[in-house]
Amino acid sequence: MYQAYSYLSHLYCPRCIRRHDSSVPQQTCSCNAPLLSAYDMDALKIQYRKETVMVRPPSIWRYHELLPVRSEKNVVSMGEGMTPLLPMPKTGGRYDIAALFLKDDSVLPSGSTEARGAAVGMSKLKELNIPDAVLAANGHAGAAWALYGSRASITSHVAIPVESPLSIRKECAASGADLQLINGFVQEAEDAAERASQRHDWFDATPFKEPYRIEGQKTIGLELAEQLQWKLPDVIACPVGAGTSFIGIYKALQELIELGWVYSEKMPKLVAVQSENCAPIVHAFENKQTETTEVPESYSAAFEINTGTSAGDFLILEAIYETKGAAVAVSEEDLLAEQRLVTREEGLFVSPEGATVFAGVRSLREENWIHRGDRVVCINTAMGVKSPETIEGSTPILAPEDDW
Amino acid sequence: MYQAYSYLSHLYCPRCIRRHDSSVPQQTCSCNAPLLSAYDMDALKIQYRKETVMVRPPSIWRYHELLPVRSEKNVVSMGEGMTPLLPMPKTGGRYDIAALFLKDDSVLPSGSTEARGAAVGMSKLKELNIPDAVLAANGHAGAAWALYGSRASITSHVAIPVESPLSIRKECAASGADLQLINGFVQEAEDAAERASQRHDWFDATPFKEPYRIEGQKTIGLELAEQLQWKLPDVIACPVGAGTSFIGIYKALQELIELGWVYSEKMPKLVAVQSENCAPIVHAFENKQTETTEVPESYSAAFEINTGTSAGDFLILEAIYETKGAAVAVSEEDLLAEQRLVTREEGLFVSPEGATVFAGVRSLREENWIHRGDRVVCINTAMGVKSPETIEGSTPILAPEDDW
Repeated sequence: MYQAYSYLSHLYCPRCIRRHDSSVPQQTCSCNAPLLSAYDMDALKIQYRKETVMVRPPSIWRYHELLPVRSEKNVVSMGEGMTPLLPMPKTGGRYDIAALFLKDDSVLPSGSTEARGAAVGMSKLKELNIPDAVLAANGHAGAAWALYGSRASITSHVAIPVESPLSIRKECAASGADLQLINGFVQEAEDAAERASQRHDWFDATPFKEPYRIEGQKTIGLELAEQLQWKLPDVIACPVGAGTSFIGIYKALQELIELGWVYSEKMPKLVAVQSENCAPIVHAFENKQTETTEVPESYSAAFEINTGTSAGDFLILEAIYETKGAAVAVSEEDLLAEQRLVTREEGLFVSPEGATVFAGVRSLREENWIHRGDRVVCINTAMGVKSPETIEGSTPILAPEDDW
Repeated sequence: MYQAYSYLSHLYCPRCIRRHDSSVPQQTCSCNAPLLSAYDMDALKIQYRKETVMVRPPSIWRYHELLPVRSEKNVVSMGEGMTPLLPMPKTGGRYDIAALFLKDDSVLPSGSTEARGAAVGMSKLKELNIPDAVLAANGHAGAAWALYGSRASITSHVAIPVESPLSIRKECAASGADLQLINGFVQEAEDAAERASQRHDWFDATPFKEPYRIEGQKTIGLELAEQLQWKLPDVIACPVGAGTSFIGIYKALQELIELGWVYSEKMPKLVAVQSENCAPIVHAFENKQTETTEVPESYSAAFEINTGTSAGDFLILEAIYETKGAAVAVSEEDLLAEQRLVTREEGLFVSPEGATVFAGVRSLREENWIHRGDRVVCINTAMGVKSPETIEGSTPILAPEDDW
């Protein structure tokens, strides 16, 4: 029986259901909604076995049948994936949650979860012979696409807000990407990227303008299911800015259930966590809406999720409603305090966005929305050290002859 | 047959051969030399199979029989290990080396290779019921031990030079460690740590003052052999400061050959690379000496290896001589240029220390010491983004209405 490297079938619009050809470059649907990837699930149900996957090398490419890259020779990889799923016993004890886990996406190339989407997205751009990609980002995604662009020999043009962390600017600069700092917010960076895309005929790789980074982010969900021996947890909590990881995890769980790889068809409750200062998804959830209202000119120490609007908002909200999940906002004070506490307890220097998730889980536990016996997975999307400005405090300086 | 978790037999002094008990805390030998770990190789040859290892989860602990932690319950882990071994075709093309690889230790917890030594070292401190550890470091090791200390519930006291990168200070601060900045070089930090160890009865975990971090660093060598299907490369090049990784790799290769796991008993040539500004090993090698002369008050952009003296110098030099290797110094200009070139070519934002290795390999290839057909592995010991100050240049700022 012929075994394809990828079982990608076509692209489709989750809003108007229109079908699109995946063999040519695609941006959004003619109705402006983002496109999603569909696979030949009937063939996969027969030909694809989890036992096959489980003996492959520990990278996202172990799931290549469920990824959109058709030929292995187009895979652009830095070994990304199979990040640790770690027990968090001390933090779990403090929250009174018996089984609290961290999926630690800080140990990916460039130190953030965005390596997943960049690896898959850049591989697909290579497969489609696209020489130039432009994208807007708050930070980590810009750096990841810049670096994977270098590896793929594709030129990246990256627009990030001028307030982005210095480390991100340095990574983009080191990669040789064409970096532009935008004197504004990520919304303005997206506008600049869109105009530049049209002017220069660069492919627009901003989130939801291209279909494939969600497939990369999807591997978070595939990996954590495998790491939990295919027994899905009760709750998965994830920071939400643009929301590609959140949507990707939901898509992964749906595909795993359809393939019959997991022991129960019960979906984990998906929890989206945002900062109070920029919480469009939480506002929509609280008002039982299916789309968001833009939050303009917001500031958060969780800079990466300081995203006032997302073209994927309806997909994020669908994932929450369909899984009986929740959206929760946390204060800046709480997220910064939780960053310090979790790092001190568990030795994992989580990003401010990752800390947001812990603060959100804590508050849901206090409300007893999360129960003591729930198995809860928190997603840490980046290294804390890439946002060093969130850690305050000065350090004593000893002269060599001084006593400690 | 009884299968132990660890086959650690005892500690021994590589200088005076004296044997030491590994069931109690040990610092250095009474002759002041560092101690090394010995395993029951006769039992391992019978009971330990590489096929067993190869199906275990991808962390350093898959090699637990060859690590010193006796009980699995004492393992302090953040999932560290099995970092990618990546082909570097564009850089290899530029050097005219057909098979150039990078072992990318930047994707470890806290973004540096020091996670290996910290994981094993802290686990062993936990096993020996040690509540407080003090150590001196240039940077990454301080952060790694601080974070693993938090996870192990062991208090870390960390002395680093005041000129250490900001990111390191932030990591130590986030971990809750007792951090002291020393107004001097790492040599002065070591003195401060030693005095504090005596005054406060803290265990001294500075490199070569405790025996076990070398065992953690050893896993670099174990992993790369496994990743190359147990066919050892021709050359392994590694940045050398204190030299624990270098010595660890040499020890790994010796143990693998003794176990009969590799296809040839021919040792790879081990290459130590240093900055011209701080090259005690290179000076000793060029003068065919077996010990070094201290380099005082040096400066290098490769801050992590700005180490004027190492208590393991004789072991580093032995590894070089025994493998017919080399020690090579590179200029600051070359290492910074190579950092930019490698990152732009391959998308891997290597640390300045990692870049030093590439500059060294390039110069050895130019001299034809490395041959075109050699399989060469370069070790990248940390993320470039943790030393952002090495990347210069400013970025244009666009107003939202400006044209890109």
